[in-house]
Amino acid sequence: MFFEGAEKKLEIIVDKSLQPLTNRPDSFWKEIVAKCEATILSQIENSKMKAFLLSESSLFVWDDRILMLTCGQTKLIQSAKFFVNELGADHVDCLFFQRKNEYRAQLQPSDFLEDAKNLMKDFDGEVVRFGKLHSHHTQLFYTTKEYSPIDSDCTCELLMYDMAPEVIGFLTREDLTIAQIRDFFQLGKIFPDFELDDFVFKPYGYSLNGIRGEDYLTIHVTPQEKSPYVSFETNIKLCSETRVFLNHFLEILKPFSFDVMTFNCTTELDFGNTYMKTIHVKDSLKIGYEVDFRYFNKRSEAPEKMYRYKELD
Amino acid sequence: MFFEGAEKKLEIIVDKSLQPLTNRPDSFWKEIVAKCEATILSQIENSKMKAFLLSESSLFVWDDRILMLTCGQTKLIQSAKFFVNELGADHVDCLFFQRKNEYRAQLQPSDFLEDAKNLMKDFDGEVVRFGKLHSHHTQLFYTTKEYSPIDSDCTCELLMYDMAPEVIGFLTREDLTIAQIRDFFQLGKIFPDFELDDFVFKPYGYSLNGIRGEDYLTIHVTPQEKSPYVSFETNIKLCSETRVFLNHFLEILKPFSFDVMTFNCTTELDFGNTYMKTIHVKDSLKIGYEVDFRYFNKRSEAPEKMYRYKELD
Repeated sequence: MFFEGAEKKLEIIVDKSLQPLTNRPDSFWKEIVAKCEATILSQIENSKMKAFLLSESSLFVWDDRILMLTCGQTKLIQSAKFFVNELGADHVDCLFFQRKNEYRAQLQPSDFLEDAKNLMKDFDGEVVRFGKLHSHHTQLFYTTKEYSPIDSDCTCELLMYDMAPEVIGFLTREDLTIAQIRDFFQLGKIFPDFELDDFVFKPYGYSLNGIRGEDYLTIHVTPQEKSPYVSFETNIKLCSETRVFLNHFLEILKPFSFDVMTFNCTTELDFGNTYMKTIHVKDSLKIGYEVDFRYFNKRSEAPEKMYRYKELD
Repeated sequence: MFFEGAEKKLEIIVDKSLQPLTNRPDSFWKEIVAKCEATILSQIENSKMKAFLLSESSLFVWDDRILMLTCGQTKLIQSAKFFVNELGADHVDCLFFQRKNEYRAQLQPSDFLEDAKNLMKDFDGEVVRFGKLHSHHTQLFYTTKEYSPIDSDCTCELLMYDMAPEVIGFLTREDLTIAQIRDFFQLGKIFPDFELDDFVFKPYGYSLNGIRGEDYLTIHVTPQEKSPYVSFETNIKLCSETRVFLNHFLEILKPFSFDVMTFNCTTELDFGNTYMKTIHVKDSLKIGYEVDFRYFNKRSEAPEKMYRYKELD
């Protein structure tokens, strides 16, 4: 069974007239999630935000914005259209719709450019790509209506591919508990003051949301041998500490390659001879976000064996 | 307008009862080509083989085998099925069906594993992958019926991505002549004794077949800004000279990255600090072919700007 871990991502910031979004009933969020063909598994909240753990990734809600990440074959564009139609495109200050290169793009229900065209019916926007279409990349639609990001609005994504064999071996054990996986990621050490909500999928796979005031972090683990992938994303202002957080995950997961994508919190990254930067795109969106996309690879040392398909789906 | 340069590839070796294939009428080859929704543009031949230049790549016919490469959104699997149904699966000694990672896999009429399943209806075979599903790779179905490749049966593919901007600038000039492109590639210098047949597409794009006895070479150029790609393939026993041929193309096209795939003619390749090997797969097929797949990348020096889509198709 093939599972696509790569997430689609939607962020919508609304004007004052729709705030606070956190006051909307859970039935509303349930409906949004249903539109992309996912379900809510559990939720946590504090005075600043709500975090829903989904059957395919996560939904975060603040007073002024939502952030939704969905993987697998979900139709995130439908959640975006539903939200905009229900609440009114005029009340949207800013919308981002982002998709990265998938393992098997041909199995997705829509193509990114098709989704972007769909959003262009409701909004003026720009469509851009960071990275190479034949290799790693992220494509982004964003609205170009006048907007200035607030100071705390930063994002860091770390997207890791082909974790070391012993890591995949551990993560595909079918009897893993939440405690074992938290321990594996040493989450208590690196994020001691976050409230956590996590779920172990059957036969394997793991998702976690963490919140602390307005800060979130989210981890999604696809250990499937055909598409090994782990994503980590947060809005913690990492800045000079980015390296510490990235190294934490890289040392635990030992991926073959990874992408780092940041919005308004870029920092120098150099991994010496361990990982080489093969793609680097750095640019500014018209509405004031500094975006940085980097793809790092190990140098191939000894040749690998070919992959032999045991099943063809 | 988007154009997919990455080729699908079919090779079929038949038993004595069907030889010589070169005696079949051109109407037969026209029909095979029509099945994948391409057309024949021109042809050349010698006493050993025929070479057809197609609207999407090439078809080569020898007494005992055919080799067909098709790009764009062609349905090569349909040509394969037609050939096998017309001539009989029992008379096929060996069949290879190969597809590499596409720029936009989601626009293809079928998925590789779907094609492989289709071939499994007629043949016992193995399905394998060289490289990473999330990055560069080639997938291959091959028949596992007992077979021993003949000595001269070797192949070298050089697949180049993101040629230097000045190269793309030249290759997308809309008034280029065959003479100018041959001169650009210095084909007379490197392949002096091949009979050549080539075609310049409108508004741009270029295909070339060359033959010399049983030897072929073929070049296909997709200079489109959205999917820049040039492929070179040959069965010349390059061996120790492989580096010379590869360097010839790399120096002219200055690609950002490239794949080298060889069947029964591997050789050491090291490009120092210019290109780093990020993927290397080396293995043997059950029927005696040594396959070597390597993906080379430039190290990213200065960050690039993001790509801004001017049109969404």
